[in-house]
Amino acid sequence: MGIDPGVANTGFGVVRVAGGQMSAVDGGVIEAPPDRPIETRLARIHSELEKLIAWHEPAAVALEDLYFGRNARSAIAVGQARGVAMLAAAQRRVPCFDYTPQAVKLAVCGSGSAAKRQVQQMVGTLLGLPHPPQSDHAADALAVAICHGGQARHARAVAASERPPVGVG
Amino acid sequence: MGIDPGVANTGFGVVRVAGGQMSAVDGGVIEAPPDRPIETRLARIHSELEKLIAWHEPAAVALEDLYFGRNARSAIAVGQARGVAMLAAAQRRVPCFDYTPQAVKLAVCGSGSAAKRQVQQMVGTLLGLPHPPQSDHAADALAVAICHGGQARHARAVAASERPPVGVG
Repeated sequence: MGIDPGVANTGFGVVRVAGGQMSAVDGGVIEAPPDRPIETRLARIHSELEKLIAWHEPAAVALEDLYFGRNARSAIAVGQARGVAMLAAAQRRVPCFDYTPQAVKLAVCGSGSAAKRQVQQMVGTLLGLPHPPQSDHAADALAVAICHGGQARHARAVAASERPPVGVG
Repeated sequence: MGIDPGVANTGFGVVRVAGGQMSAVDGGVIEAPPDRPIETRLARIHSELEKLIAWHEPAAVALEDLYFGRNARSAIAVGQARGVAMLAAAQRRVPCFDYTPQAVKLAVCGSGSAAKRQVQQMVGTLLGLPHPPQSDHAADALAVAICHGGQARHARAVAASERPPVGVG
């Protein structure tokens, strides 16, 4: 499950990896009412993610590393949303993984400097969707989920190749 | 209740305002195990604050505004801790209030540019403690609680002066 946290809009995307193929299970945006205090918005983000994580029981939660190109004010705001997202995962004992924007673009488009629109297009193609996700936030969440799915598959392949053959040793 | 959120150490301080006097009810530091994943640390901060808020039932949670003088990386990290602290308050329907470091220093020391050690000393004096709080984090949390306590008292006084006298109108 990928999450793109934000105080106003939090994107989420659930991807299934099976037999070398990825498919989209769920995706969308949690909207937090802009006229409410921040703590109330954080509570909404947390409770919606809590329900989604309980429902989908993901093996992992993947988030984009957001340290770059932000001022401290927006970084704090995003950090707050990120904190409650990671908490929702931890409360269900789901581990969290971070990926840089470059790693996500590389995994989805084959280039670390791909444009946003290109990422959105490729998310649709890779997941076999009839059209690219309409929401930026959902597309970003699906992209980081795809990135983690690829990494996890790679890690399993490496682990398998390092395992001694059965009957030897 | 004041909270000084941090991924490693989160300070808290509970202050009672009664009859124009402030006193310390509780204060301390929640330490999050540094060798655990961030989401696990956030879960610990959240669950400890949850218990403290349930126990003390504070009228408000006060936090220092941390937008200043940080790079984006540390701002995201502090934001994550801040997010779960605000969530713990919101889940108990306790409103959150922000104060700039200058406002806190002004409320505690009478000067917006007071040194950290001076704040620590004055927290001890204002709350009638036998000695200043040993932990920086607990002292900072008590300081922002004192700041809010003063603001809240002021707001009540203004509201009272604007209320028409009984029997008139």
